[in-house]
Amino acid sequence: MGEPLLLDYGSGGKASRRLVGDLFLRHFDNPILAVMDDAAALDLRGPVAMSTDGYTVTPLFFPGGSIGTLAVHGTVNDVSMLGARPLYLSASFILEEGLDRDVLERVVADMGAACRAAGVRIVTGDTKVVPRGACDKLFITTTGVGSILVDPPQLAPSGRRAAPGDAVLLSGAVGDHGLAILAQRDNLSFLQGVSSDSAALNHLVEKLITGLEEGRAGAVHVLRDPTRGGLATTLNEIADQSGVVCVIDETAVPVHDAVRAGCDVLGLDPLYLANEGKCLCLVPEALADAALDILRGTPEGREAARIGTVEAPGAGRLNTRPGQVILNTAVGGRRLLSMLEGDQLPRIC
Amino acid sequence: MGEPLLLDYGSGGKASRRLVGDLFLRHFDNPILAVMDDAAALDLRGPVAMSTDGYTVTPLFFPGGSIGTLAVHGTVNDVSMLGARPLYLSASFILEEGLDRDVLERVVADMGAACRAAGVRIVTGDTKVVPRGACDKLFITTTGVGSILVDPPQLAPSGRRAAPGDAVLLSGAVGDHGLAILAQRDNLSFLQGVSSDSAALNHLVEKLITGLEEGRAGAVHVLRDPTRGGLATTLNEIADQSGVVCVIDETAVPVHDAVRAGCDVLGLDPLYLANEGKCLCLVPEALADAALDILRGTPEGREAARIGTVEAPGAGRLNTRPGQVILNTAVGGRRLLSMLEGDQLPRIC
Repeated sequence: MGEPLLLDYGSGGKASRRLVGDLFLRHFDNPILAVMDDAAALDLRGPVAMSTDGYTVTPLFFPGGSIGTLAVHGTVNDVSMLGARPLYLSASFILEEGLDRDVLERVVADMGAACRAAGVRIVTGDTKVVPRGACDKLFITTTGVGSILVDPPQLAPSGRRAAPGDAVLLSGAVGDHGLAILAQRDNLSFLQGVSSDSAALNHLVEKLITGLEEGRAGAVHVLRDPTRGGLATTLNEIADQSGVVCVIDETAVPVHDAVRAGCDVLGLDPLYLANEGKCLCLVPEALADAALDILRGTPEGREAARIGTVEAPGAGRLNTRPGQVILNTAVGGRRLLSMLEGDQLPRIC
Repeated sequence: MGEPLLLDYGSGGKASRRLVGDLFLRHFDNPILAVMDDAAALDLRGPVAMSTDGYTVTPLFFPGGSIGTLAVHGTVNDVSMLGARPLYLSASFILEEGLDRDVLERVVADMGAACRAAGVRIVTGDTKVVPRGACDKLFITTTGVGSILVDPPQLAPSGRRAAPGDAVLLSGAVGDHGLAILAQRDNLSFLQGVSSDSAALNHLVEKLITGLEEGRAGAVHVLRDPTRGGLATTLNEIADQSGVVCVIDETAVPVHDAVRAGCDVLGLDPLYLANEGKCLCLVPEALADAALDILRGTPEGREAARIGTVEAPGAGRLNTRPGQVILNTAVGGRRLLSMLEGDQLPRIC
């Protein structure tokens, strides 16, 4: 048990500066942050991708990661999904008075390590401390910026660029993060083999863009990470944004055995569970094998699989409409896979 | 009383999308946000300034502003302090289950109006809903990016560039925001004339930089807004970063009559109260009058004043050390003005 955090640490005065000096500058060490002005000056060439996410996950630590790893990986991944190289992050902390200083230190250390592994830097930040009971321990919001690698940037991957004939690739197995959080929260010992997939996908994305796009800018139509709401929700978003139909083979979707078994017991569908280190990748049929090879050649994508195809609405013998996702089920049927209704699990990320 | 916010709204599924469509897209209307990908593609030329702040102010609404105006003004101002033109903001919301939907709408409308007035756009965002009791109503983190106007960017204003001989200018009266929050929170009716100074300073800063720097890049040595910890804390930060001494004339610091009277009754020092629409500006003596004229020619800077001078440590007959702030008091004495100790007022911004 470390020193409990005092309200003073959010005052903007002496105590705030001690916290910044002792903790943040040490774990996030870099020359831009060390300047300590109100804003950071970045060497960043346009066009620029920007994304933000708030992290409220509970518990703060879980098998495979922590709120600190998520706060780096989640935002790095969102910036990457625009075909961009994430370079700089900001970090804003909202801390509850009385929080164990050692807990904060572990979270900040996790963030520093995740940044170094991903090759990004936290260059500016903010800390607020609110009285006991005004927040639950610790929330983090990170914002990332990076350079869009696709030239011209209008051809960067986007949920609006899915086209009939595209192959739907998935970089690995789904459901691990959501189930790991649930197991930790409810102390479900039969799920002890399940671990979050929290990981940065920027290196995988950069290999995909540079490997696939040489001489054909825009070859990667869509990149998106299926986080909250899971794979099913993300596929619906893409189908909706592009006005197409996604047809998915249930048996082709990779799911780890422990996750499948856990979902069976708990009555959960892995297609709706959150992931924090996976991405969907939609490319034209002709490039599907090449893309899959690139994905499988990366540590994060070694379990990548082709899980389906994009069709035009009303194609084949099906009376489909724009925005629908069709699942060819394991038992040989077909059903509509809808977007998540309600909230399967709050504070999952 | 509007509809209470459900946990579903943070699920990433259908309810989340309704909230985004009905509320955020309507009030923050712009083509970049409307794309609805995980990240926003920005037309932003380097070098780039980036800053982030979390907003936890209570109450959510107060005379002169709200958490929504602060979330825009505060981050716009921090980006501006690097001699930059803020262009794009991200917004991350952490909402408490059961929050009145009308309250959220008022906050979001305030943010939209503040953005339009400042000429910036919210281009990407995130919403999390946490169960009742896990946060107090509503927290917002905004991150801003913009183009640094000073060329070369190494000569942009910085807390490290204060130099002996610089004039210390202040763009207006101090203490209004801190006292307005206190009055609202504790229902102090004798303070009813006090209103927050919440305002965007980007137009003022741009006039100062372009007006003063034509042909002399780097003429503005330091810009900084004295928010949490007040004027005294910010002056200490600057003196510390630059290794100089700031000598301030207490009688020259503008303080509105109602603020001075309120501080007298409550035993508070306006030099330590938070401000949300003021900045310090340090320029060489030779440019002080020109800078003051420019500041006074703007709506936000019409009460601007020269409040002091930067000296080398040990200058004159004083045995001063680097990082000290000396106050020439109203009664003719001199005293050290220290950084805020402890927390005068939590959740002030």
